[in-house]
Amino acid sequence: MKNITILGATGSIGTQTLDVIRKERESFCLKGISANKSYHKIIEIIEEFNVPYAVMMDKEAYEKVRDYCKGMNLNTKVLYGMEGLKFISTLEEVNTVVTSVVGMIGLIPTIEAIKAKKDIALANKETLVVAGEIVKREALKNNINILPVDSEHGAIFQCLQGNKKEDINKILLTASGGPFKGKTKEQLKNITPLQALKHPKWNMGKKISIDSSTLMNKGLEVIEAHWLFDVDYDNIQVVVHPQSIIHSMIEYIDGSIIAQLADPDMKLPIQYALNYPIRKNKVINSLDFYTLNTLTFEKPDMNTFGCLRLAYEAGKIGGLMPTVLNSANEVVVDLFLREKIGYLQIEDIIEHCLGKFNNIKEPEIEDILNMDNEVRKYIYSTY
Amino acid sequence: MKNITILGATGSIGTQTLDVIRKERESFCLKGISANKSYHKIIEIIEEFNVPYAVMMDKEAYEKVRDYCKGMNLNTKVLYGMEGLKFISTLEEVNTVVTSVVGMIGLIPTIEAIKAKKDIALANKETLVVAGEIVKREALKNNINILPVDSEHGAIFQCLQGNKKEDINKILLTASGGPFKGKTKEQLKNITPLQALKHPKWNMGKKISIDSSTLMNKGLEVIEAHWLFDVDYDNIQVVVHPQSIIHSMIEYIDGSIIAQLADPDMKLPIQYALNYPIRKNKVINSLDFYTLNTLTFEKPDMNTFGCLRLAYEAGKIGGLMPTVLNSANEVVVDLFLREKIGYLQIEDIIEHCLGKFNNIKEPEIEDILNMDNEVRKYIYSTY
Repeated sequence: MKNITILGATGSIGTQTLDVIRKERESFCLKGISANKSYHKIIEIIEEFNVPYAVMMDKEAYEKVRDYCKGMNLNTKVLYGMEGLKFISTLEEVNTVVTSVVGMIGLIPTIEAIKAKKDIALANKETLVVAGEIVKREALKNNINILPVDSEHGAIFQCLQGNKKEDINKILLTASGGPFKGKTKEQLKNITPLQALKHPKWNMGKKISIDSSTLMNKGLEVIEAHWLFDVDYDNIQVVVHPQSIIHSMIEYIDGSIIAQLADPDMKLPIQYALNYPIRKNKVINSLDFYTLNTLTFEKPDMNTFGCLRLAYEAGKIGGLMPTVLNSANEVVVDLFLREKIGYLQIEDIIEHCLGKFNNIKEPEIEDILNMDNEVRKYIYSTY
Repeated sequence: MKNITILGATGSIGTQTLDVIRKERESFCLKGISANKSYHKIIEIIEEFNVPYAVMMDKEAYEKVRDYCKGMNLNTKVLYGMEGLKFISTLEEVNTVVTSVVGMIGLIPTIEAIKAKKDIALANKETLVVAGEIVKREALKNNINILPVDSEHGAIFQCLQGNKKEDINKILLTASGGPFKGKTKEQLKNITPLQALKHPKWNMGKKISIDSSTLMNKGLEVIEAHWLFDVDYDNIQVVVHPQSIIHSMIEYIDGSIIAQLADPDMKLPIQYALNYPIRKNKVINSLDFYTLNTLTFEKPDMNTFGCLRLAYEAGKIGGLMPTVLNSANEVVVDLFLREKIGYLQIEDIIEHCLGKFNNIKEPEIEDILNMDNEVRKYIYSTY
């Protein structure tokens, strides 16, 4: 029996994690959950799984859940904010923390969980993007596993089993290409949030859907792959594969490529990460190669989708540049969704920020948080 | 340093094995080689690699090589026939025997090599087809590795690393479909040996080229996969994939599929088998996904290409039926190549033989050799 905390239990990954746990009730016990504002959903989860600890990031939502639990005489302890997140991430009895919150907010509780020797089922890619070096150092020191929970890194992780990291020649990170593949800059100019939210293959949250449309999502994944698998940026190749059947590949030094394929369904990487190194019976549909027909591959267009190029650049420079990239992106996506800026400004503002802020080498958590703050303040006050 | 014997050193796989050894001279030492009649080639290999033992299966060729070595004052000891094969397969100093002879002739020396505790780099699929149960039993008893040297089983073997055989849900055995994919029975009626020898993707020996065109090659591989990976016939699915880029796949119980891809070049599976479990620097070309473009998949047409269906049937029945299948196939391919029978008779005669001969359960080597003899005599005397 594994005891689990889910940071971000009401989002897309959180919800699917619950689906997996529902199918393997005998294997998992939910000890802690968190959400931002979704108090209805959190109450449902509390009641279904009899969860001992729940955290709300929004004050009003926190009070609602707290009062509800009190009124219903539930045993659940309801906590508030970052202190709550840290608390459920470090609970003595917890084995694995699923970090499925979106954005920089995952950073601190993830680091705290690692220090408390919890395995991390990592869906919060921003943590590795901004603090890859620190996360790796702490993971090594505390001898815990970082188990990737997105389809690409989960695939790479599977392709690495039975092999050695040192034998990796190249990572082939597949990308659907997003909803605007093949479009020109001119055609992208007037894209609306509604258009950008429609992803052809994956049903995801808003932030990641926009990131998918700009290829920033793939850019963040490139940086994540660099840290997870110790591979140079020059040896991480993005391959556009619109069918999203091959979830990524490793080319080894002998030229042999190992690929992981599956029906595009996040429940598989979640299940694999939660049960690793054991495989359990399937919670997804099988692929049928007799009806699958065709898989195609192309080169990504980094001129039109400059966010991917910027992510490579920020990653290679290192230090605080991935933080600038990520924080700027979080803010401009928010501004775009609220229709304060146009679609192409997403890329322009991020590029501007990468030129504007000063870098330092080997930043600590405080440096990262300060830079995050600075970038946010700057963009929100300017646009 | 690994000491190697190659049975069938002048054929397609043998020649490519020598290419691999040439590139890793520091890792391998050639101790024994054999050939049927190709005495020119054998002499070249003897001189290049300074091989201590050489075996010729043809009496005249044997005498030529023996006299040459004597005349040139070479240290190589030249041996004749099956006794010679057994001798070089069981040499004290040899670690790995590469069985790249074609046909039933590989059976006895392979079994002898296993009993002498040599790892087997297995390219002679007939050995597993006719005596899978015995080979497995002896391999287990003598604690040696059977390392598959064809692209499909080599792929499956790679996809299995870091995983458990018990977690295999299904093997997806890919097939190019051969040169006659899409043709009707009517169109196959007048196929000539020359047409059948032209394979679209692989440059191979004559026997295996014909087997590829009839899909019997895939049928033999299905039986081979059954024995190598302990998978039921119902869980071995042949997938036609004309580009021959995915060399085979495993679907695990969780629905995750691990695939191995590479440029179609036998040197990779040879290199992997010889160095297992170590990966060495590449002796093949890299795949380029930016130019690769499209991979396609289809269901094999077992009505038109009945040999594949017959192989499944013979495999499922077991006992001596795979021997009948294989021996009949060896003979009819020979008859077809000598234009004694038509293309469609290949399948018809094999089917007829499967109905004609009596089966026994758990045959021993002697039963297999007797049946082989009977089938050969019957077909040669009838057609």
